[in-house]
Amino acid sequence: MSAATPAPITVALLGGGTVGSQVARLLADNADDLAARVGAPLQLIGVAVRDASRPREGVPGDLLTDDAAGLAARGADIVVEVMGGIEPARSLILTAMAAGSSVITANKALLAADGGTLYRAAADNGVDLYFEASVAGAIPLLRPLRESLSGDRVHKVLGIVNGTTNFILSKMESEGADYAAALAEAQALGYAEADPTADVGGHDAAAKAAILAELAFHTRVTAEDVSCEGITGVTAADVAAARDMGFVIKLLAVAERTPDGSGVIVRVHPAMVPSDHPLASVRDAFNAVFVEAESAGDMMFYGRGAGGAPTASAVLGDVVAAARNRLSGGRGPGESTYAGLDVRSIDEARTRYYVNLDVADRPGVLAAIAQAFADNGVSIQVVRQDGHGDDAGLIVRTHLATDGALRRTVDNLRNLDAVKSVVGVMRVEGEAGP
Amino acid sequence: MSAATPAPITVALLGGGTVGSQVARLLADNADDLAARVGAPLQLIGVAVRDASRPREGVPGDLLTDDAAGLAARGADIVVEVMGGIEPARSLILTAMAAGSSVITANKALLAADGGTLYRAAADNGVDLYFEASVAGAIPLLRPLRESLSGDRVHKVLGIVNGTTNFILSKMESEGADYAAALAEAQALGYAEADPTADVGGHDAAAKAAILAELAFHTRVTAEDVSCEGITGVTAADVAAARDMGFVIKLLAVAERTPDGSGVIVRVHPAMVPSDHPLASVRDAFNAVFVEAESAGDMMFYGRGAGGAPTASAVLGDVVAAARNRLSGGRGPGESTYAGLDVRSIDEARTRYYVNLDVADRPGVLAAIAQAFADNGVSIQVVRQDGHGDDAGLIVRTHLATDGALRRTVDNLRNLDAVKSVVGVMRVEGEAGP
Repeated sequence: MSAATPAPITVALLGGGTVGSQVARLLADNADDLAARVGAPLQLIGVAVRDASRPREGVPGDLLTDDAAGLAARGADIVVEVMGGIEPARSLILTAMAAGSSVITANKALLAADGGTLYRAAADNGVDLYFEASVAGAIPLLRPLRESLSGDRVHKVLGIVNGTTNFILSKMESEGADYAAALAEAQALGYAEADPTADVGGHDAAAKAAILAELAFHTRVTAEDVSCEGITGVTAADVAAARDMGFVIKLLAVAERTPDGSGVIVRVHPAMVPSDHPLASVRDAFNAVFVEAESAGDMMFYGRGAGGAPTASAVLGDVVAAARNRLSGGRGPGESTYAGLDVRSIDEARTRYYVNLDVADRPGVLAAIAQAFADNGVSIQVVRQDGHGDDAGLIVRTHLATDGALRRTVDNLRNLDAVKSVVGVMRVEGEAGP
Repeated sequence: MSAATPAPITVALLGGGTVGSQVARLLADNADDLAARVGAPLQLIGVAVRDASRPREGVPGDLLTDDAAGLAARGADIVVEVMGGIEPARSLILTAMAAGSSVITANKALLAADGGTLYRAAADNGVDLYFEASVAGAIPLLRPLRESLSGDRVHKVLGIVNGTTNFILSKMESEGADYAAALAEAQALGYAEADPTADVGGHDAAAKAAILAELAFHTRVTAEDVSCEGITGVTAADVAAARDMGFVIKLLAVAERTPDGSGVIVRVHPAMVPSDHPLASVRDAFNAVFVEAESAGDMMFYGRGAGGAPTASAVLGDVVAAARNRLSGGRGPGESTYAGLDVRSIDEARTRYYVNLDVADRPGVLAAIAQAFADNGVSIQVVRQDGHGDDAGLIVRTHLATDGALRRTVDNLRNLDAVKSVVGVMRVEGEAGP
């Protein structure tokens, strides 16, 4: 560092909620460390909030403003957007970039809906766009994917990226609770919203899956490209049956290359994971992302996926990176969609199913059921018969097949006389082998 | 990217062993992807090997040279050093930097012994120094520590960073094998060298611990600062006793801030870890590093710690980063030792001990032993008495105390009439509470 104190790097903050107030606190509390790590002090020049008359702990009152557009246009070195939602966040980010500011955002919904617009504006204006906090909160995950693994070839990403649903499924697993009771507990503890749809419906995870897929496969992927199924249909019986077979149920965000390498498939759904898989022990509100790469092999990144302080930590890491770039004249990585892979339907994904059937107890039932699998080209890995008479049950786990063929098989099973009802159907992920 | 093909980024490779040959292979196999990600093609201009007359798969014969110094001095954009050892690696790296080359190295021994010299040379010559592959092989770990967590405050790093010892301890755990048998199996499978001292003595882990500590705490730490104890004293009885108490034994690299924040302590030793801790399920030759940060909370990074292809993946990620910097005129992070914390002795570390004693079976024994703990200010968490008569045993687990006090306690116990022998002593890590 030179002897003269370098000019400060200015930071404007759009949003003063849980994450924004933690970002402001960390900028103040860690000011000396941040200055030493950046090579210049970071100076907060304004915080845009809805009601500027309401004091915020740790934020000097004269920094508060309700004029977000004015703050975004002031040309700060770095603008941090932690408001969430598509608008006005997008317009404000574009305003900031046009004014020459690098932008840090935690806005997964916006990135998954229209990330391309943000990337283009960053490139056009010669500024940085960083968004580590948008997926898996505090876990350093996007920087490793964008940078550390940039010399490798990612085959598949399997993520537990929604803490609310992981908390609910963990409660169902550890306490035998049913879905409604576990959801109520999550709501009581503040892990789930009063309207939990975005979480339990898988939509939050789908936005994150799109972001992960774009980075892993260098292909533009939006939330609309993601096949999405939530956890509202998962029953205590499913959880118990999974445990009996040595599995746990997790809501997974899966992004993978097609076997021929020309396409990418992105999906969110509950899945049975072998209990000795590293993802199986990710409990409660923790997040983890498992990456399979050609040369690096299997990796996992684990940590807190949400919360004010953890998310603010990820935002601050990006602020430091953008600030260093300001000082050195460098630039962070831009959009990388050169691969331009086809985004394919989940029908083409190669998955395996667990199917739990309530069946008639008479000769020939197994033959009829096995035939339904064979008719769709699906090979059976394990069959287990349980009970007799009215309680006769059959559990089938398949080998890998296309998801479309597996879905057609289940449709056919529903129409068989031998099958009284299809009690449970779930995909199985994380198993080696065919 | 501009319409004209940009000039290639040149790469020189020092070392043609397991890692070097994989780096050369990946540069060739992934040439198109790498060019798209960098924005310019990467061109391998030479590979320095001991015997240039011996052909290497995947490396054109005319690129091989036994003149490492000449290749290092050629002014390639990027020089990759994967020879290992202190010299001639250090001199070659300094030659390369003086010629204006950015340097990627996997050389943990050199970084831990004399990283400061390399950092200074990089700064003096305005080039990059990256070394992701030096710790925990393929796991993107150093970039997250140096960059993603640069807005946070790390309290403690706990790592399983040596695959050989983790394989041996996993075998002792899963098969009840004793140390010698597990080592022999590791040697037969190629996980351990014929002379395993560097691994089983903890020295390899100590070098990595020094590198992790320097990055986490912004303080210069060398291998000599690391208190180091290997796994050669771990017995099958220790492993069984740990399991009975719900623990597994791991060789840990621990780097932590002292409670008052003014110092850092770095140590490598076997430790008992609760079996529900995320590190406990890291088995066989896998590596993992657990990080406790103030805002981000607990995180873990898991993956393959060694092997040609995984290590080459980490090297290539650094090559892409350095190449992007060449094109953009940016610079990666330099040395960050601004905090300048005191490096303290393990005596000052606050740890907890498990102590397994063979004791006389007579009244007053427990009182005498409890007194030895009390005399050193050590508080006991659990005592368990096993057996009677000649087989009388006592297992003690303590609360947190300074390592010095715990060590003095054990010395005192050895001198007590009531204690026939100290059968096992091991530190306990990863438990919450006092």
